[in-house]
Amino acid sequence: MPEQFHVYDTTLRDGAQQEGIHLSVDDKLRIAGYLDELGVTFIEGGWPGANPADTEFFARASGELHLANARLVAFGATRRVGGQAATDPLVQALVDAGTDYICLVAKSHDAHVHEALRTTLDENLAMISDTVGHLTGLGKHVFVDCEHFFDGFRANPGYALEVVRTAAEAGAEVVVLCDTNGGMLPSWMGDVVSAAAQIGVDIGVHCHNDSGCAVANTLAAVEAGAMHVQGTINGYGERTGNMDLTTLIADLQLKFGWPLMSPQQLSQLTRISFAVADIANQPHIARQPYVGNSAFAHKAGLHASAIRVNEDLYQHTRPEYVGNDMRMLISNMAGRASVQIKGDQLGLDLGDREVAGRITDAIKEREAQGYSYEAADASFELLVRTMTNQLELPFELISWRVFTQEPNGHADNSEATVKLLADGEKYGVIGEGNGPVNALGDALVKALAPVFPQVKDYELTDYRVRILDEGRGTDATVRVLIDTSDGEQGWTTVGVGTNVIEASWEALSDAYVYGLVKGYCGAARN
Amino acid sequence: MPEQFHVYDTTLRDGAQQEGIHLSVDDKLRIAGYLDELGVTFIEGGWPGANPADTEFFARASGELHLANARLVAFGATRRVGGQAATDPLVQALVDAGTDYICLVAKSHDAHVHEALRTTLDENLAMISDTVGHLTGLGKHVFVDCEHFFDGFRANPGYALEVVRTAAEAGAEVVVLCDTNGGMLPSWMGDVVSAAAQIGVDIGVHCHNDSGCAVANTLAAVEAGAMHVQGTINGYGERTGNMDLTTLIADLQLKFGWPLMSPQQLSQLTRISFAVADIANQPHIARQPYVGNSAFAHKAGLHASAIRVNEDLYQHTRPEYVGNDMRMLISNMAGRASVQIKGDQLGLDLGDREVAGRITDAIKEREAQGYSYEAADASFELLVRTMTNQLELPFELISWRVFTQEPNGHADNSEATVKLLADGEKYGVIGEGNGPVNALGDALVKALAPVFPQVKDYELTDYRVRILDEGRGTDATVRVLIDTSDGEQGWTTVGVGTNVIEASWEALSDAYVYGLVKGYCGAARN
Repeated sequence: MPEQFHVYDTTLRDGAQQEGIHLSVDDKLRIAGYLDELGVTFIEGGWPGANPADTEFFARASGELHLANARLVAFGATRRVGGQAATDPLVQALVDAGTDYICLVAKSHDAHVHEALRTTLDENLAMISDTVGHLTGLGKHVFVDCEHFFDGFRANPGYALEVVRTAAEAGAEVVVLCDTNGGMLPSWMGDVVSAAAQIGVDIGVHCHNDSGCAVANTLAAVEAGAMHVQGTINGYGERTGNMDLTTLIADLQLKFGWPLMSPQQLSQLTRISFAVADIANQPHIARQPYVGNSAFAHKAGLHASAIRVNEDLYQHTRPEYVGNDMRMLISNMAGRASVQIKGDQLGLDLGDREVAGRITDAIKEREAQGYSYEAADASFELLVRTMTNQLELPFELISWRVFTQEPNGHADNSEATVKLLADGEKYGVIGEGNGPVNALGDALVKALAPVFPQVKDYELTDYRVRILDEGRGTDATVRVLIDTSDGEQGWTTVGVGTNVIEASWEALSDAYVYGLVKGYCGAARN
Repeated sequence: MPEQFHVYDTTLRDGAQQEGIHLSVDDKLRIAGYLDELGVTFIEGGWPGANPADTEFFARASGELHLANARLVAFGATRRVGGQAATDPLVQALVDAGTDYICLVAKSHDAHVHEALRTTLDENLAMISDTVGHLTGLGKHVFVDCEHFFDGFRANPGYALEVVRTAAEAGAEVVVLCDTNGGMLPSWMGDVVSAAAQIGVDIGVHCHNDSGCAVANTLAAVEAGAMHVQGTINGYGERTGNMDLTTLIADLQLKFGWPLMSPQQLSQLTRISFAVADIANQPHIARQPYVGNSAFAHKAGLHASAIRVNEDLYQHTRPEYVGNDMRMLISNMAGRASVQIKGDQLGLDLGDREVAGRITDAIKEREAQGYSYEAADASFELLVRTMTNQLELPFELISWRVFTQEPNGHADNSEATVKLLADGEKYGVIGEGNGPVNALGDALVKALAPVFPQVKDYELTDYRVRILDEGRGTDATVRVLIDTSDGEQGWTTVGVGTNVIEASWEALSDAYVYGLVKGYCGAARN
């Protein structure tokens, strides 16, 4: 491991370029808190001056962000063509952001200087020299991102290296080689990185994943001497995304054996990856290395029995190092052994072969109908309890119905009725809501609250709908997954039907049954 | 490029191990057709004998699959411990599958021989030698997959290489080194592959993506001499997935310059990637290299103006080589230039600065409400037509409402009414369905059909729901995307509301408006 090594996160700037990601200033402040907790070296906060929200971010960060590990970096460009750094308003905005560290993007590909900047190669060098010199003169630490460096090196290696030299001589502490178009391959990285490193300045890399090799390209650059790596949590970024820091950190720490973070920080990797996905409102990718829901999940019946003997034979690393779990999937490809391990994990005794076999058969049958127990642990447990006579239903449904019309300015355009029996009494109530499932949930809570007041603390935290038979449109079978929380515990239930409301009702009522059966009663009451 | 190079697809076997993927025999036959069209060398069809559906696949394949390019491979294991290949029923099932090519999995890690097979290292070699010899004696071409080879090589290199030698001497044509646990890194591959290649047999590799390097590891193996690569379409597979063939094929063909496929076949890569995702019922990952929806999409306002000058400066390769598009995303981070390019792509004239500016502002405002025009080209076009007075609405809605109750055995548990004006007449109809959106769709078609009979040919092919404010449960803002087709054309519309039905109605009615405005009238009528 190099004496100094920078894990440089650009989720808040380059990651936010991803299709579908829109981060508010509050979102950015929350993500910065997670990045600091994880222990990255630098957090690039945005481009002050160019983007009003980013200017606000830096203004609020100085008061609201209390970083224990990371340092904040303001990103910007070299001064305007023909201008002066000292009087350039965008350069001044970088100074005003108030960070000790500034990262400047500079052109290093001759064709980009001509066609995008529309200036001379010499003026581009002067822009770099002037801007870096001005900022270091003010006591700032400056990094320089050389945009399109690898394509530029191929087209005109002399000029690309001249850009590195100019930045270094002007006082840049790290010169970052950017594979902006993301087309590099690992075996092409070493020579370029070595050539730049010979100039005698610390070298960083910034990779994109367009050829599917962003992590491997970064590893190749590190092996060639780079001591600064730029990437984003979950690989967010434009097009195919930036280099995924969650993978790279785990590779460097667990494969190279480099102590970038403390073991305690590394064990937060999965949680932080999910938290950032939540804030960015992105579905978490189950196949994501190390931190994905499926990353350590074993499905094939073939393996399940073997895994009971020695789990290390079937894992490349220990999931607990990154805060993930070895999870046995319940699926129609798995046999009794998988169901038993899943039962063990949930604290249910399924040691009896006959019982485990019956449950496996029931799961196979229900999966054929469209149910999925891979995520819905609560529904799995309800099924097991039902089949082993360990479930006492807290209430009995009599009927439900719901009516919805076009809003026409009314907030509550849906009305539901729910009738049920609880504690020997019949309850029939009306619920309202701005949607049918919302109205049904309202009615269910009102009907249960007299007997079970804790249901008022149950909150639906996510609601996912999947059409199972593609090609059948709105007529298709629908699967609904509902995440519920009482503020302390979270649980997931599943419902299936030919109708989004019917499926939602099943997942909704199971969510309340499960919470009541488990005795969950909200954070406030504990 | 080696004289012989094998692109070996295992989507139908190893890919099907992925969480959430369940392939029927029909599904597998359809995928095999696409793989053949793409031009892979080998298609591994499954494990006959071990899995009744796979036995059926091979039985039906011989009659129903007419492969022009690829050869089918049956996958299986070496004979049982202590048995004989000639009398082993699972080995016989491989013969019965009737393929010319067979791929056998064999243990090559000493600990797996002891702990999973529970036999001696010598017996494992005898199992390989006996099974390969028996099958080659019957005229079969045999490949041997060495399971856990890289971990085995680290633990006991002598034994791992002895497995390769035994397979080669028994007549295996390719010995495949499998990174079964997926923990390898590219710089670790070369020495191991070279050591195995020195035995004098053709070497293949089979990588998983657990350290985020499956494609790069495969490239490193190829650079060290491997001439056979195993992977799956879209990287489907257990845990983090198998090596993604869509990326690898494009890397080898476009970066290495190897002519694996014809340019015409390569240009089907995106279409086939989407088709396989559809059959496997998996969402296509927008960030997937080369073939993802976002792979060549540019968002930042910064770039959009530059891209109009010279698109090659901002792309690592040409999207048309793989059948993808350079797509400008409509998003609140993009400016007028992006909207103009999007307009150009859709054949809408947005050259006027003032018009383009007004549309950009409207899109920003609607995106703030939750709309997304990145996928919904039809809704984008309707918005542009509305704002430029180029939209004549084919009908005018008066009202809708829908009622749903618990199914209780009734298929059609929902009833909707829709009232609208079309061609000067008022139509008020009742629709039924097994769900509220289905019932609304039924009513809408019935109301429109007297004036526009072509709507009977419109089919909703996909229906996606997204909750926008996570943490707010069923009370949250909902975005619905609906894909519609008339059998020839497909189009996508978006609706937003606090209510899944309200949002669905908007996307649904816009789908009919768009189809009618464009004059789509179904494949049968053309």
